[in-house]
Amino acid sequence: MTLSRRAAIANGMAVLAMAPGLARAATDARALHKKLICMDTHLDMPANLARPGWNVMDRHDVDLDFTQVDYPRMVEGGLDGGFFSIYTPQAPVTPEGMSAMRDAAFLRAAEIREMVVAHPQQFELAFVPEDAARIAAKGKIIVFQSIENSGILGNDVTLLRSFYKLGVRMAGPIHFLNNQLGDSATDKKQWGGLSPLGKDFVKEANDLGIVLDASHSSDDVFDQMMDLSRTAIICSHSGCRAIHDHPRNLDDARIKRLAAAGSTIQINSYNEYLVTVPPNPDRDKARRAAFGKMRNLGSMPPDQAAAAMRAVAAEMKAVDKQYPIPRADFEEYMKHVMHALDLVGPDHVGVGADWDGGGGVTGMNDVTSIPKITERLVKAGYTEAQLSNFWSGNALRVLGKAHEARRQA
Amino acid sequence: MTLSRRAAIANGMAVLAMAPGLARAATDARALHKKLICMDTHLDMPANLARPGWNVMDRHDVDLDFTQVDYPRMVEGGLDGGFFSIYTPQAPVTPEGMSAMRDAAFLRAAEIREMVVAHPQQFELAFVPEDAARIAAKGKIIVFQSIENSGILGNDVTLLRSFYKLGVRMAGPIHFLNNQLGDSATDKKQWGGLSPLGKDFVKEANDLGIVLDASHSSDDVFDQMMDLSRTAIICSHSGCRAIHDHPRNLDDARIKRLAAAGSTIQINSYNEYLVTVPPNPDRDKARRAAFGKMRNLGSMPPDQAAAAMRAVAAEMKAVDKQYPIPRADFEEYMKHVMHALDLVGPDHVGVGADWDGGGGVTGMNDVTSIPKITERLVKAGYTEAQLSNFWSGNALRVLGKAHEARRQA
Repeated sequence: MTLSRRAAIANGMAVLAMAPGLARAATDARALHKKLICMDTHLDMPANLARPGWNVMDRHDVDLDFTQVDYPRMVEGGLDGGFFSIYTPQAPVTPEGMSAMRDAAFLRAAEIREMVVAHPQQFELAFVPEDAARIAAKGKIIVFQSIENSGILGNDVTLLRSFYKLGVRMAGPIHFLNNQLGDSATDKKQWGGLSPLGKDFVKEANDLGIVLDASHSSDDVFDQMMDLSRTAIICSHSGCRAIHDHPRNLDDARIKRLAAAGSTIQINSYNEYLVTVPPNPDRDKARRAAFGKMRNLGSMPPDQAAAAMRAVAAEMKAVDKQYPIPRADFEEYMKHVMHALDLVGPDHVGVGADWDGGGGVTGMNDVTSIPKITERLVKAGYTEAQLSNFWSGNALRVLGKAHEARRQA
Repeated sequence: MTLSRRAAIANGMAVLAMAPGLARAATDARALHKKLICMDTHLDMPANLARPGWNVMDRHDVDLDFTQVDYPRMVEGGLDGGFFSIYTPQAPVTPEGMSAMRDAAFLRAAEIREMVVAHPQQFELAFVPEDAARIAAKGKIIVFQSIENSGILGNDVTLLRSFYKLGVRMAGPIHFLNNQLGDSATDKKQWGGLSPLGKDFVKEANDLGIVLDASHSSDDVFDQMMDLSRTAIICSHSGCRAIHDHPRNLDDARIKRLAAAGSTIQINSYNEYLVTVPPNPDRDKARRAAFGKMRNLGSMPPDQAAAAMRAVAAEMKAVDKQYPIPRADFEEYMKHVMHALDLVGPDHVGVGADWDGGGGVTGMNDVTSIPKITERLVKAGYTEAQLSNFWSGNALRVLGKAHEARRQA
């Protein structure tokens, strides 16, 4: 694979010299992209659903309101769906904090389902791998549901069953901070991996047929989930540590272990995991001040909320100008994709770009730009069948495995 | 009140002698009924939402498929909404049983919200008393949400918060059978009222501003909820024991206590609470056999499911013919209404007829017939203001009290 890809790149370089050929290749790649079922395994767009004045059916502009995913842009970018995340920020691990997280998560889950019900010609809920092709064939967006931060389950991991019943098919135990289930990739070592409750969580997810997602988990949690899980786990939005040394990225050994288990690493486009961003307290403070203005958005009338959002977006741009930070570009993103592909091949890599969750790089800053990935991979010599797996087959395979390995009721 | 009502009845009798006057009175009463905001505090229709082939926007026929509530019939009957129930049958009080109930309840809650999202011109979610008039003014159905059987909460009554967040504003602890929260009106004494967990449940509901519903609770649970609750509790679908001695009905002392606390008894039309039905094992067996055929409905294609439903309905009619039982009629229903009105007046009585939950009497077997209640009460001399309270004001007042008494976050 590596050799043929390199040969293809060399080929691409040659093509560079003759523009008409290049244009035709690009057109072909875009046609192929449209033809493929393209899924992203970590879409944070549901966080926007409750924003007054924000409508998933409208075309938004990332420069004006930060958002990166909506129906028109999914269609334009040929993104056929993926895992829509029930994300809940980590609250203090107290009874009150955990119950507040849980309550918020149920509401978020409802909002995802309601998005689908409100637009039945555009979206459809998916539960099993076969649903993807069926829904895509109807020209609709494939809506799998996932949980980011299973700290929402409090001390009762059986609550995962309620979310399963609502349609959740993938769940990560942890987010930025440690919780009662285990250690985060971006927090201090506390449990040394999974907590005892975290081990129950693994079993519960296995029993239900929910794919375990190790993105955001510490290396220890990754290892222990690999050890304990009866079926392949996934990394729904992570990068390669060999390319950029960040605890949210996977080292080569773990990427290989993931692949050997039949799974896939879905490459993230989150700036801080791609380039080194030096600490900048002034910038952080200015950003917090701007973000703080979003706090009362929920209680504003739609027009006012939309205006407030645009004002915050403008302020954030000013902050970026005043305190510039290193910005990853599309090339840096593709380095991670290519490294993973070189390491484990196209049956074990995909895309989870963290749209609306902090993802986006210069040159690929919303879902309309994802055909560039296909273009690049076509140039690199990947075949239609390989790209089909890269864009959805791999993740669906992992989901199918989890479904098969579930406890038969 | 009693005297004026009796006088009005005498007046009505006089009118009886002159048909044109009667016809005009009936027309006036119907016009008044349409004008009033009419709510039923216990609608079991959500149980039908997941039935393949059943669409809330279609007009159904109770004789053909048992159902008693849908949008066209609500409009026809001038029923402007009410409390749509998240009902879950009592499973064994085991970890598995409780979690299965919980999971089912979350799905049912989602289905109610999705009904509203799917038909935004016809339905709207309601959360506070003021929503009722606002929604009715738009010509839409008012959708408050309630829980029938809080056994779904398992051993964690804080889970009620998740349901509150989804919109639930009324909850009864118990259904036909005792559970971990306390004793049922229709089961053997086990806890002697509320369990310790049941007392926590009362506090949790109070803290949230959820109205406690004592229908289905044992007398002891009723008394203890009255003692413990910081705000008025309700009986969302119950009758008068003085009219028919059944444990699901309230004795006069308890109806008076409810009224004295500012609350209301919402009269049920469930046959077995209105007339004595002798045990009939053969009939029960035949009904179970017919109902058993509904078990696989959920996995059938819509047309097949609808046909199966009609077949079961026909079989049930045959069972009724073969094993007839005493059937309450509209007069028997009105006896309960009138008794409660005589006892505590129109500010403490309303309607919770158990539609789609076993309610319905001869002469009033779906929601299209409820204008008959208004007609009868107009004849009895009740004023528009009194009827306005009877049909919604009383229940909304109790909801408002619960909201005011909630723990301020």
